[in-house]
Amino acid sequence: MFSAERCTVILGDIRTRRPLVHNITNYVVMNNTANALLALGASPAMVHSIEEVEEFVALSSALVINIGTLSPSWVEAMGKAVRAATARGIPWALDPVGAGATAYRTTTSAALARLGPACVRGNASEIMVLAGATADKTRGVDTSRGSDDALDAARQLARTTGAVVAVTGAVDHVTDGTQLISLANGHPLMARVTGLGCTATALVGAALAVEPDRLAAVAAGLSYLAIAGEIAAENSPGPGSLQLHLLDALHLLDAATIQRRLKIVP
Amino acid sequence: MFSAERCTVILGDIRTRRPLVHNITNYVVMNNTANALLALGASPAMVHSIEEVEEFVALSSALVINIGTLSPSWVEAMGKAVRAATARGIPWALDPVGAGATAYRTTTSAALARLGPACVRGNASEIMVLAGATADKTRGVDTSRGSDDALDAARQLARTTGAVVAVTGAVDHVTDGTQLISLANGHPLMARVTGLGCTATALVGAALAVEPDRLAAVAAGLSYLAIAGEIAAENSPGPGSLQLHLLDALHLLDAATIQRRLKIVP
Amino acid sequence: MFSAERCTVILGDIRTRRPLVHNITNYVVMNNTANALLALGASPAMVHSIEEVEEFVALSSALVINIGTLSPSWVEAMGKAVRAATARGIPWALDPVGAGATAYRTTTSAALARLGPACVRGNASEIMVLAGATADKTRGVDTSRGSDDALDAARQLARTTGAVVAVTGAVDHVTDGTQLISLANGHPLMARVTGLGCTATALVGAALAVEPDRLAAVAAGLSYLAIAGEIAAENSPGPGSLQLHLLDALHLLDAATIQRRLKIVP
Repeated sequence: MFSAERCTVILGDIRTRRPLVHNITNYVVMNNTANALLALGASPAMVHSIEEVEEFVALSSALVINIGTLSPSWVEAMGKAVRAATARGIPWALDPVGAGATAYRTTTSAALARLGPACVRGNASEIMVLAGATADKTRGVDTSRGSDDALDAARQLARTTGAVVAVTGAVDHVTDGTQLISLANGHPLMARVTGLGCTATALVGAALAVEPDRLAAVAAGLSYLAIAGEIAAENSPGPGSLQLHLLDALHLLDAATIQRRLKIVP
Repeated sequence: MFSAERCTVILGDIRTRRPLVHNITNYVVMNNTANALLALGASPAMVHSIEEVEEFVALSSALVINIGTLSPSWVEAMGKAVRAATARGIPWALDPVGAGATAYRTTTSAALARLGPACVRGNASEIMVLAGATADKTRGVDTSRGSDDALDAARQLARTTGAVVAVTGAVDHVTDGTQLISLANGHPLMARVTGLGCTATALVGAALAVEPDRLAAVAAGLSYLAIAGEIAAENSPGPGSLQLHLLDALHLLDAATIQRRLKIVP
Repeated sequence: MFSAERCTVILGDIRTRRPLVHNITNYVVMNNTANALLALGASPAMVHSIEEVEEFVALSSALVINIGTLSPSWVEAMGKAVRAATARGIPWALDPVGAGATAYRTTTSAALARLGPACVRGNASEIMVLAGATADKTRGVDTSRGSDDALDAARQLARTTGAVVAVTGAVDHVTDGTQLISLANGHPLMARVTGLGCTATALVGAALAVEPDRLAAVAAGLSYLAIAGEIAAENSPGPGSLQLHLLDALHLLDAATIQRRLKIVP
């Protein structure tokens, strides 16, 4: 169901159609996210005001919601944008940044997750919290649990929300609750650059904009970042260089590179 | 009226006087804009709160208003800052990001354009929408029209607002409604870095801060970015490298480089 | 009391403990600040909403308050976060960006300074204004005064607020009102990159998170940035390159480099 060929076709579609990806995201990563989308070949826009989100989402091919620096007026705009996207059949991806850290984050991301995202992407802790929160479990979430538990949580979250759920880390897992794609690209130095998780979700948005098979789209979006990050890290003495080379690598990503690099865990 | 010598003199004045350029701009580009102004030799400040914009603009030599991530409280602050600038004879530049995409953007940018900017800079679509909006035309604006139509729109917008209007693209056109300067610097890879249009407007602000001939100032500001971008692109495998080399090139920009590179379309 | 050995031990503690540093900072520098903290070895978070700052600060090992792009709701959140930090004995650092430029900045930073920061870091002008404002002096502050006067102001501000005060510039001075550490690292090109002062305050936050001797912690935090900036500048034709190499140098900073580079003014 997922292969280097599939991944390449989706990239080609992004570059041909240059889909407009509407982001309501956090202040920290707006610039990087926009640049990563541009480097890959999509057209980014950052639009958050209640006055215009509904009108703007109607122009877009995908919506990305990221709660990294949330506040009440932004959360209200996220809700409006999501409902407008849903009404028009525009796919949207949710990044529940820091779910579990505060009640506000957990409640907000759980409420958004119930609105029918095409994809939820988070790290193990965020996905486990969100699986617990949407299931209305009363016991606290033990964030010391490992990646196997996160995978169970991802499957559960996928089933309760209908989303394709991605748990990213050393290995990225993508599931619709039944099927599973696991990818082993990336590099540890990527964790020393802020917001690459947010960038992953944005690139997933670009893939969802052109590819109706959501499982393949999510896997493709994650693989673009992980492969580009891995290439960038090989030439980087530190995280400053990695950031720069990552954008270059996204821009230069091609069929041969994907064919040679993509590591699908059997 | 415009020449490499003129362009060089204005750059020298920016570096000697280090004008304070007050920006009320969008979240995506604040960092890049500040860095580009610093690299060129100006002093940037990003100040947006209603509580202080009037007091701050009085310390500044130019004001730059960019509606990229607008919301009501920011628009209110923009209006206050513009009126304070006007009252003190401080030149201000308007960047109508996304005019035409939503009613909120079109209305806000048209209202600002009527307040007497020294310069309006946008891409073809934004300038055509704004020319239509300020002229209260009832027929919709056909955004598929080409650059010749944008040039007519620019001339019309210049006449109705009194601003020098710049339409940037493969060729940058600068007009006061009568005279025209066209510049052919730049590189296609620049379109793959977010916010370089916003940066262009900010550098125009720096030039307006030191040069009373607004037509020359706007052309100079645009040429600094286009020349630096062209130099940067020659050494960049992708948009990540371009972003870095662009700041270096602005810092290193000198008379000889301007003399050798500046392409004024006859 | 401060030495290369001490500076190295504090760095080792940051890398071992990876303290969570909660930042309420300005839009311009959020990305850079987060990346500098990550490159050094700390864990950054940018959280500003009134709904969650108190809960979030309780998870953190240090808090950094920076008024660069202040507005009323952010100032309210800063106050809440500071009180929560104080109640839990969590050290916090204040960066009074632009104090003196507007009444709003001066008033806000003076009010925050009275709440008991572990450290206040600013440039000469900001520290002189703040020393004057917190002392309720009626005569205006003469910002043309030199670094010796800033040093007097720093000592006075330290005594009235109980904070360790740092005045940064060509030489960085750190004082608790009695003792003084002066450091002579850094490079003039650093002034052409936006927000490196803000980054300095954030790295001070990381050091305060692990080191109870506040004078040593503040000196250590400043020295990491100044040494990394000096190394970066040696390989940078301009400020774009410097920004990238600075993050790499923070990541690569080690005992031998600190031993060789650290310049404590006797």
